[in-house]
Amino acid sequence: MRNICVKVSYDGAGFNGFQSQPYGRTVQDEIEKAIKHLTGEDIIIIGSGRTDAGVHAMGQVFNFHTSSTIPTVRWAIALNTRLPKDIVILDAWDVPNIFHSRRSAKRKTYRYSIDLGKFPDVFARSYRFHHPTKLDVVAMAEGLAYLVGRHDFTSFTSIRSTKPHHVRTVYEAYFEREGDALHMYITGNGFLYNMVRVIMGTLLWVGQGKLKPEDMKRILDGKSRALAGPTAMPHGLMLVNVEYGDPYELTEPPSAAVDDEDDE
Amino acid sequence: MRNICVKVSYDGAGFNGFQSQPYGRTVQDEIEKAIKHLTGEDIIIIGSGRTDAGVHAMGQVFNFHTSSTIPTVRWAIALNTRLPKDIVILDAWDVPNIFHSRRSAKRKTYRYSIDLGKFPDVFARSYRFHHPTKLDVVAMAEGLAYLVGRHDFTSFTSIRSTKPHHVRTVYEAYFEREGDALHMYITGNGFLYNMVRVIMGTLLWVGQGKLKPEDMKRILDGKSRALAGPTAMPHGLMLVNVEYGDPYELTEPPSAAVDDEDDE
Repeated sequence: MRNICVKVSYDGAGFNGFQSQPYGRTVQDEIEKAIKHLTGEDIIIIGSGRTDAGVHAMGQVFNFHTSSTIPTVRWAIALNTRLPKDIVILDAWDVPNIFHSRRSAKRKTYRYSIDLGKFPDVFARSYRFHHPTKLDVVAMAEGLAYLVGRHDFTSFTSIRSTKPHHVRTVYEAYFEREGDALHMYITGNGFLYNMVRVIMGTLLWVGQGKLKPEDMKRILDGKSRALAGPTAMPHGLMLVNVEYGDPYELTEPPSAAVDDEDDE
Repeated sequence: MRNICVKVSYDGAGFNGFQSQPYGRTVQDEIEKAIKHLTGEDIIIIGSGRTDAGVHAMGQVFNFHTSSTIPTVRWAIALNTRLPKDIVILDAWDVPNIFHSRRSAKRKTYRYSIDLGKFPDVFARSYRFHHPTKLDVVAMAEGLAYLVGRHDFTSFTSIRSTKPHHVRTVYEAYFEREGDALHMYITGNGFLYNMVRVIMGTLLWVGQGKLKPEDMKRILDGKSRALAGPTAMPHGLMLVNVEYGDPYELTEPPSAAVDDEDDE
């Protein structure tokens, strides 16, 4: 059996999330349907993590095992011709059997985007949360800095999170301005359910003056979801990329960078 | 009666064009409905020109006459709350009664966008025509240069054009690269039906090597639609802006910059 790793982008607006669900259209179902159509195999793909309904990806990664002999360079084109227009495969390559797109992941980067324009940019309306009133972006950046490092992110995850522990490492987090758009980029070894969205919802309170930047530390230390702000809308969230290091350096079944499922 | 001028953006993907039609959803109908909802008046708005089904606008302009006393600064917000998400009013201002958004227009700028990436950018798929095979952009730019100036554009308009004459002036036209996107910007005193799309369809033939840059002059001189290339897909086209000069300098009913209706 071959193990094939695939990089995929999708517009989350039309999906009930990445992972198969009893109801609604999902990215996973569409991809598995395309693979079935192409190879005849009933395959279950392994995503690097789940994304919620409405959340986008410019660089989601999944892998799957197949006995198909289709050359690696053909996979992206062959799948794209069988996929709907809101999913685009960007690349595919053979990886060692040991490779697991979720457990082998080393770093993930998410972006949360806000439209600060007086009126929304009609062409970015599915990709940015519109916030036309004034935000203190300097205070937000100060607040965000408290989250960099290894922390227990219990306060910044949904109470629906079922993870055994909530310690994650944020390697890097910063804001970037692009015209009327304000992007927050955050890179970590893994993210808890709704973590980026709760961080952004809390930072919006900082930006609105309802919280001070240093309150982010107090909320982190309090380890209670009740201390943080609301969960920001899903459509501003984008999975930017997933990093793995060299898959050919994997010599034993990889222990997960985090110990459990990773999703947003 | 006041005369109100409005700048509007819309995502053309969900519309059967700007102008009211017997069938399908149109931008004009949605705006007139919103005005009716706001003022109670049955108003017909005057657009700077029509855009076809699938064509977008970041800066379409229209005007309408109203007896409403709503302050100018409130119009954009009041209309946006009553409009669907794929239409966003950007600005509104009072203009002299003499102002007519089509006849008073001095210059219009369109953009046609191509996605040159190996695979389409999923987030720009409604706004760029995907052309993954090689294009000679230098030859396309050379060909485009032949169109600048005052010319009879009969070869570059739909045979469905019913205009009395086809002479227009192109003030400026150029290509701009933005990552995998290739944008053609073209500014003129007016555009014939499908003119930008036929120009782009013909330049694609130049870029593919089916025509030489200097063939653009031959096609222009031949004054026959049959000489030009295909009409490029509508979704790559964007009405960027419409320029008027100072409306308060209008002292008599304006003669049109072009003598008839303008559309794309």
